Amino acid sequence: MAVKSWLSIAPDSDFSLANLPFGIISTSINRSPRPAVAIGNYAFDLATFSMEGSFDRELSVNAIVFQQTTLNAFAAMGRPFHRKVRQYLQSILAEDTSHIFKSDKSLQERILIPLSDVENHLPMDIGDYTDFFAGRNHAFNAGVLFRGPQNALQPNYHHLPVAYHGRSSSIVVSGTKINRPRGQALVDPKAEVKFPEFRPCKVLDFELELGMFLCQGNQMGSPIDVKAAQDHIFGYVLLNDWSARDIQAWEYVPLGPFTAKNFATTISPWVVLADAMEPFGAAGIVNDIEVQSYLRENKSDWALDIMLEVDLTLSDGTTSTITKTNARNLMWSFPQMIAHHTITGCPLRPGDLFGSGTISGTEQGSLGSLLEMTQGGKQSFKLADGKERKYLQDGDSVSLRGRAGKTGAYVGFGKCTGTILPAHS
Amino acid sequence: MAVKSWLSIAPDSDFSLANLPFGIISTSINRSPRPAVAIGNYAFDLATFSMEGSFDRELSVNAIVFQQTTLNAFAAMGRPFHRKVRQYLQSILAEDTSHIFKSDKSLQERILIPLSDVENHLPMDIGDYTDFFAGRNHAFNAGVLFRGPQNALQPNYHHLPVAYHGRSSSIVVSGTKINRPRGQALVDPKAEVKFPEFRPCKVLDFELELGMFLCQGNQMGSPIDVKAAQDHIFGYVLLNDWSARDIQAWEYVPLGPFTAKNFATTISPWVVLADAMEPFGAAGIVNDIEVQSYLRENKSDWALDIMLEVDLTLSDGTTSTITKTNARNLMWSFPQMIAHHTITGCPLRPGDLFGSGTISGTEQGSLGSLLEMTQGGKQSFKLADGKERKYLQDGDSVSLRGRAGKTGAYVGFGKCTGTILPAHS
Ligand SMILES: [Ca+2]
Ligand SMILES: [Ca+2]
Ligand SMILES: [Mg+2]
Ligand SMILES: [Mg+2]
Ligand code: NI
Repeated sequence: MAVKSWLSIAPDSDFSLANLPFGIISTSINRSPRPAVAIGNYAFDLATFSMEGSFDRELSVNAIVFQQTTLNAFAAMGRPFHRKVRQYLQSILAEDTSHIFKSDKSLQERILIPLSDVENHLPMDIGDYTDFFAGRNHAFNAGVLFRGPQNALQPNYHHLPVAYHGRSSSIVVSGTKINRPRGQALVDPKAEVKFPEFRPCKVLDFELELGMFLCQGNQMGSPIDVKAAQDHIFGYVLLNDWSARDIQAWEYVPLGPFTAKNFATTISPWVVLADAMEPFGAAGIVNDIEVQSYLRENKSDWALDIMLEVDLTLSDGTTSTITKTNARNLMWSFPQMIAHHTITGCPLRPGDLFGSGTISGTEQGSLGSLLEMTQGGKQSFKLADGKERKYLQDGDSVSLRGRAGKTGAYVGFGKCTGTILPAHS
Repeated sequence: MAVKSWLSIAPDSDFSLANLPFGIISTSINRSPRPAVAIGNYAFDLATFSMEGSFDRELSVNAIVFQQTTLNAFAAMGRPFHRKVRQYLQSILAEDTSHIFKSDKSLQERILIPLSDVENHLPMDIGDYTDFFAGRNHAFNAGVLFRGPQNALQPNYHHLPVAYHGRSSSIVVSGTKINRPRGQALVDPKAEVKFPEFRPCKVLDFELELGMFLCQGNQMGSPIDVKAAQDHIFGYVLLNDWSARDIQAWEYVPLGPFTAKNFATTISPWVVLADAMEPFGAAGIVNDIEVQSYLRENKSDWALDIMLEVDLTLSDGTTSTITKTNARNLMWSFPQMIAHHTITGCPLRPGDLFGSGTISGTEQGSLGSLLEMTQGGKQSFKLADGKERKYLQDGDSVSLRGRAGKTGAYVGFGKCTGTILPAHS
């Protein structure tokens, strides 16, 4: 898919013609949130396009899904429909198109909105959000810090994709500012008698994750077969699972993380369709045990070859790329997560979101959280200007970036950014 | 509130004039789910009543909230509005009313539907569900079984209301049948090398909990003050947190329960308003430490004096009451849970549901789960007909019942029932 567009698209754009990710936008002159597709430097306004009857007949009959404030109805149409819409849009944007859109400047002006004029909204109404723990390198590194190297990975780790239910109400779109959380943490974590205080979080962290949206659910009591699970995947976003480590360490036993995670989770605004990611299948981390039958995929290229980076921008404007890694650093596939999530009967719904778990590589400079980069705060890491850092400070911005493919045909996410504001008094 | 009604209400009815709980119903002749109130043996159809203009003028202007398929819009109006509606309904149902409803038999026939003709639906669209762990007796008993008496209660237990995010998509209304879950559990939990198998759950349990619905949320980043939290409480239901103990034991480290809990949670259909419960404030379990300021309520009657019972009905029809206890067996109040849930900034929304955690007493026959009754499966308990039991078998029905008050003026929930079907093949 390196077809050229008649639109001018920078070769390093995340939003090449090979991508066409879906999102929800509004503008200052049309404040209704509505579906759009990102292409080059533009948002292609699907609500306006479909309202003007510019889709072909087959797509027009379902164009009501583009007159919604979320992508849930579009997603629920299923992957064959997403494919048709994406292919249709690719065809009318391709250099060799005969579609009127290529020549009708006035139509173009109504449909193509510069991304700089667009406000992005959450793409989906998220019924439930689940955060997995499939990044084995991260699970191991974090386990060493919380429990020591002997018990770093729990006995269940290789048998099932460990996860916890997250909080859907605090999922926000890139650009939303985040107040430093206040909460309970130990005065002295090493003291014999545990004594907490109430204070602004001192150990604020991010987690680099891949998010996955569901387009199709299941009936309660009817698990989804791992081999059919691909059909349930709408698409992917970048996900930053902000984490208050000092609060987490105190609260997480025995029922898991709670207020240390539920204050905010940031996602990138454009959902890259499962179809757009299909060419980038690749090997992931090999699980050396034989898993239960309901988790067996018999596929070697189940992971996604997505280059991932994390930028840290200080309040003085200096930016350091503090992590470079790849989404192949997962040990469980999204189909395996879907099969496991539903195995006891849990119903999924269109719009549900999964987080992959933190993605860390094994090389120098490839870690997906500050917890790992600082070895639990024991050492600093260096920024671009030589300054040293441990955890996030007020005014810091964290930007996740990710893309698959190559120059002229990138399939990317755009930015997933959040800035830390001081704690409320 | 022992005012008599002109309607004939049995003295032991859960739905006395002192109660008037809200729910969502449909009937075979009007299949649209719509709001109603339970009174004696009837559902009072609020959608029809408000459509016929039978509310007084002050309530009529907001009657649109009764033309909805959930109670979310009604809840979001806030407690002063709930109070007005309940008081108005109490007044027209009171013996001394001059309202036309008392004499208009035809209007009564359109509005009062026998409960036996009514199908109940989930009362709220539940954005997020959180399950707390505030029943200290249960937390202790379960902790002994999972970790031994030394570490039964974790160091954080008395400092904060421990909780985990639950799954909102699998919350079902009383009467919904539950398939026995299949999942991963250990072949031999005591073996040194942990080896799981995939099988129908062998250790299926219930948990007796109180549920609480939110009527008012908060902005992200702005915690709810514990002293203002009562205004955020819409009302209460009974909640059965079905639990697959063998699956839970294997999966729950380090991130908490997941597939062992997310297959189903059953709630009673009628939401008892916070106002209706207000007369039943009582002392709960005393927390002997001084908690952080954001959790300090300075109230001694923060718990609810609700008598709770659990019936187990076998497939042969025999019923045994296996538990009698009281909702006072909690150590954290719902306002404390609300304050803690939001302390780092998490936004709550109208319709969100909290579970209290399992409620167990300290006396013989007062335990809120089979895990505790059987000491982790080590001993059987006796049924009414002398048979012995450990965990739930296919065909078993579990009914939670609960009410406050006294004869002629009970404020009760009706039943919260679920029947176990065999595992899907
Ligand atoms: Ca995470
Ligand atoms: Ca529970
Ligand atoms: Mg988070
Ligand atoms: Mg449950
Ligand atoms: Ni949810």
